[in-house]
Amino acid sequence: MDAAILSFVAQYSSTLDTVFEALTDPTRRAVIRRLGGGPASVGELASEFTMALPSFLRHIRALEGSGLIRTRKTGRVRLCTLEHDRLAVVDGWLAEQRAIWESRTDRLEQHLREAKDD
Amino acid sequence: MDAAILSFVAQYSSTLDTVFEALTDPTRRAVIRRLGGGPASVGELASEFTMALPSFLRHIRALEGSGLIRTRKTGRVRLCTLEHDRLAVVDGWLAEQRAIWESRTDRLEQHLREAKDD
Repeated sequence: MDAAILSFVAQYSSTLDTVFEALTDPTRRAVIRRLGGGPASVGELASEFTMALPSFLRHIRALEGSGLIRTRKTGRVRLCTLEHDRLAVVDGWLAEQRAIWESRTDRLEQHLREAKDD
Repeated sequence: MDAAILSFVAQYSSTLDTVFEALTDPTRRAVIRRLGGGPASVGELASEFTMALPSFLRHIRALEGSGLIRTRKTGRVRLCTLEHDRLAVVDGWLAEQRAIWESRTDRLEQHLREAKDD
């Protein structure tokens, strides 16, 4: 493979590492679900989760670092938005796996049909 | 919520923790992809991955612990099989998120239509 493709593959793999890591935690998954319903400020989110603020902010930073959410300061408020496109890389990865095992199932079925015809 | 539902929710959340954790590693994702093409023995898999055997076996155990693969000893060989159903919990979780934000988009569109009609 040429260098550009290798670099793309490495970047995709590293994105998957970070996104899956962000999804390992129930609080972070709950924040994603909450933001699915619409943007919210860090303050609003923090009030909905019974957790010490520093721990909660660590989760917000982890989500931001993974690219799953975006935060933007407007005045004195920091607004969080869900980044659907980043979550879509998980969809993409799952679709790849499904394509692999479905093509295997097709090959098995064809093999069985041919064996029957013989 | 009653105790049975709470216990189910807790178990589902803990399954998601473990499955996402298993997927954070590129070697483990590559093993899943490989097993999508059909079962393979631990020996066959180990020979395809350039990694010290003890490290590789740790990945296999992590995958088995997450329920994403099953291993079964037949004679002197340990055969690994992909557990599609366990990977499907990720599909399920993604579908939930999508349902949340699609219903939000629908509400926004309806709101805009009503505002236009006024």
